[in-house]
Amino acid sequence: MSVTPWHVTGRVDYAKIVEQFGCKSIDTVLIDRIERLTGQTAHHLLRRGIFFAHRDLNELLDAHERGEPWYLYTGRGPSSEALHVGHLIPFMFARWLQQAFQVHIVIQLTDDEKFLWKDLTVEESQRLARENCKDIIACGFDAQKTFIFTDFGYMGHMYPNVVRIQRCVPMNQVRGIFGLSGEDSIGKIAFPAVQAAPALSTTFPHLFGDRKDVRCLVPCAIDQDPYFRMARDCAPRLGHPKPALIESTFLSGLRGLDGKMSASDPSNVVFLSDTPEQIRAKVNRHAFTGGGATLEEHRKHGARLEVDVPWQWLNVFMEDSKRLEHIGNEYGSGRMLTGEVKVELANVLIQVVERHKAARAAVTDEVVDAFMLDVRT
Amino acid sequence: MSVTPWHVTGRVDYAKIVEQFGCKSIDTVLIDRIERLTGQTAHHLLRRGIFFAHRDLNELLDAHERGEPWYLYTGRGPSSEALHVGHLIPFMFARWLQQAFQVHIVIQLTDDEKFLWKDLTVEESQRLARENCKDIIACGFDAQKTFIFTDFGYMGHMYPNVVRIQRCVPMNQVRGIFGLSGEDSIGKIAFPAVQAAPALSTTFPHLFGDRKDVRCLVPCAIDQDPYFRMARDCAPRLGHPKPALIESTFLSGLRGLDGKMSASDPSNVVFLSDTPEQIRAKVNRHAFTGGGATLEEHRKHGARLEVDVPWQWLNVFMEDSKRLEHIGNEYGSGRMLTGEVKVELANVLIQVVERHKAARAAVTDEVVDAFMLDVRT
Repeated sequence: MSVTPWHVTGRVDYAKIVEQFGCKSIDTVLIDRIERLTGQTAHHLLRRGIFFAHRDLNELLDAHERGEPWYLYTGRGPSSEALHVGHLIPFMFARWLQQAFQVHIVIQLTDDEKFLWKDLTVEESQRLARENCKDIIACGFDAQKTFIFTDFGYMGHMYPNVVRIQRCVPMNQVRGIFGLSGEDSIGKIAFPAVQAAPALSTTFPHLFGDRKDVRCLVPCAIDQDPYFRMARDCAPRLGHPKPALIESTFLSGLRGLDGKMSASDPSNVVFLSDTPEQIRAKVNRHAFTGGGATLEEHRKHGARLEVDVPWQWLNVFMEDSKRLEHIGNEYGSGRMLTGEVKVELANVLIQVVERHKAARAAVTDEVVDAFMLDVRT
Repeated sequence: MSVTPWHVTGRVDYAKIVEQFGCKSIDTVLIDRIERLTGQTAHHLLRRGIFFAHRDLNELLDAHERGEPWYLYTGRGPSSEALHVGHLIPFMFARWLQQAFQVHIVIQLTDDEKFLWKDLTVEESQRLARENCKDIIACGFDAQKTFIFTDFGYMGHMYPNVVRIQRCVPMNQVRGIFGLSGEDSIGKIAFPAVQAAPALSTTFPHLFGDRKDVRCLVPCAIDQDPYFRMARDCAPRLGHPKPALIESTFLSGLRGLDGKMSASDPSNVVFLSDTPEQIRAKVNRHAFTGGGATLEEHRKHGARLEVDVPWQWLNVFMEDSKRLEHIGNEYGSGRMLTGEVKVELANVLIQVVERHKAARAAVTDEVVDAFMLDVRT
C-alpha cells in the first residue's frame, strides 16, 4: 500500500493510515454532534464512514457553537475534461456541509498544478479548469456563498499568502512529505504553498476582510492530507488557526478495490458523460464482485461484501439507507444474486449521472462567470 | 573572490569572471557600433569599461538594424529605503539606452525576493518598493516608454510565464547556480523564475501583445548573470529569443576596492539622502586612497590609481572626460594630492546626490501611479 497526493496503490488499510498520518477517526459521538448542531440527519457519506477521519473537527465545531465564522475549502486538479463519479464525492459532501452549516465555500481549480505535472499547455489547463467548473457548479452549490477560482486567474490575489507560506517551509520538508527529487522542477516544490494558501482566510479579502481568525474546514480525500499537514504547520506561524480536515476514503475502480479510480483506464471507470447503456455494460462486464463462483456456492456462503465493488459503490451512491441495508442482508446471505446487485448499482449510477448531466447543461457561461467572479475589478 | 547574486567578497578579477561565467568582454568595435547605430557618443559608463561584459549584444543590435522591436529590462530588490550612489549605476545607464535607442523599459521591484530573504513583512517590502520606485523615476525615465512594477502587484499577470519557466528548471539546476541548501525555503528556490519571467515579452501583453519574438536586453551588475543564464536556457524552450545582457562591474565601498558597496555599513557608503556635509566628511575620513604615505613619497611615485577609491568613483560619476583624464594624469604622477582628489570626488558626488534629491522631490504619488499603472483595470 502506498498513498501520496499523486498515487494510491494497493489495498488501502484506512485504520493504518489514520495511525500513520496522525489524524483521528470519526466516531458516532462526533456524527451525533454534527446532527445536533445542524438539526439535520448526517449525510450518508458521513454516516457510512466514507468520510472517516478528521483533524481538529471538534475545535471547529466548538468555534461554530460560539458563533464564530468559518468556511469550507475544497478543490480539484483539472487534468481531464471527463470527470468520473468518484470526483463527485468531495463536492457532494461539501455541498451538504455548506447547506447544513450555512457557510461560505471556496473551491480551487489547480490549473497550475496540472500544467506542472502533466504534458499540457497553460491554455489547455485553463480551458479544462473552466469545463470542470461547470461540473462543480452542477453539484448544487449556493451561488451566494460559493467562490470558485483558478490559480492562474486568482494568483494576483493569493500571491502574498503563497510567499508567506513558502518562506515558512524548507525544501527538505516538502521533499520529505511529497517524495520529490532534485530532478523535479522548482515549480513542483513550490506548488504545495499554492494549495495551502486558500486555507488562510486572508487569501479572500472580498469574503473575510482582513480577519485572520476565520477557521477553515477542508473536505478532501485522505491522500491530500500531506498538503494540509504542511498548511497546519504554517498557519499558526502566520497568525491563522490551523485548518481542520474531514477526510474520505477513495472510490476504487470497477475492477477491484485496490488503489483509487483513475480516469486513465476507461473500462475501470464510470464517467459523468457515460450513457445509460455504457454504464450498464461497464458494471456488468467489469465490476469485480465477491459473489460465489457458482450459484450453489453463492446461495450457501453469500457474497463477500468486503471485496465486492458493487456493494462498496452502492454505499457511496445509494441514498436510500433502508434499501441499502436490505441489499446488504440479502446479498451477503446469498439470497440476492450478483446480477441483481449489478442492476441495482447500474440504476443508481444512471440516476446520479443523468441528474448530473441535466444540472450541468443548465450551467451557462454566465453562471460560470458569476461563480468565478473576477474580484479584481 | 566570490561572486553570487547575494554576496560579493574579495577583490573582483573581472577578466576571470568573464572567463568563468562564459560571457564576452565589450570591446571598442562593439562600442563604435553602438555609437553608429544611435548617432550618439556612448555613455561614459560604457566608454570607461564600467559596463564591461555582455551576452548576445551583437545579435540584439543585428535585430535592431533589421528594424525589429526590443526592450530593456532591469530591476531592483527593495530591501532598504536608503539607496546609495551605487544603486544609480544600472538605472543611469538604462535610461541612456532607453533614450539612445528609443525603446520600452520594464523595471521589476522584487518585493517578494526581499520578503523571502530578509526579515521584513510583506507590507514593509511593498512600502519600500514604492519608495524605491520614486528614486528610479528620478533617474529620468521616459514616462511614455517605462513600466515599473512590483512582483506582489503584477504577479497575477506574470504567473503563467513564471510557471512555464518553473516547469523548465529542475531543483538541482537552481541549487547549482545559486548555492541553496535543503534548509532554504521553497520560496527561495522558486524565486529565480520570477526574476526570469520579465525577460519574456509575453509577460507584458499591454506592451507587446502576444508577440514572442520581441528581444530583451538586460543591463545589470555582473553578479546577476546566474539568474539570466537560467533565463537564457529556458527562453528558447518556450519559443522566445534568449535575453541579451550588458553587465557592469560593482562599485566598491569607500574604504577599499574589495567587495561591493553595501548599505549595511553606513561609513562605507554614500547615500542618496546624505547632506553635502556628510558626503564631504565620509569622503575625507573613509575613502581609501593609493596616495603616497608621505608628501615626499607621493610627489616622487604618484598615486597608485589601481587601488584608489576616489579615482574609481570619479570614473563612475564624473561625466567630464577631459577633466577626468587630467586628474588621472596629475594624480597618477603625484602632482595632484590626495586631498585635492577627495575634494573633486566630494564635489561630483554632492552634485549627483543634490540633483537626485531635487528630481525625487518632484515625483508625486500621481507620478508613481502613472509609471506603475495598474494594467489589470
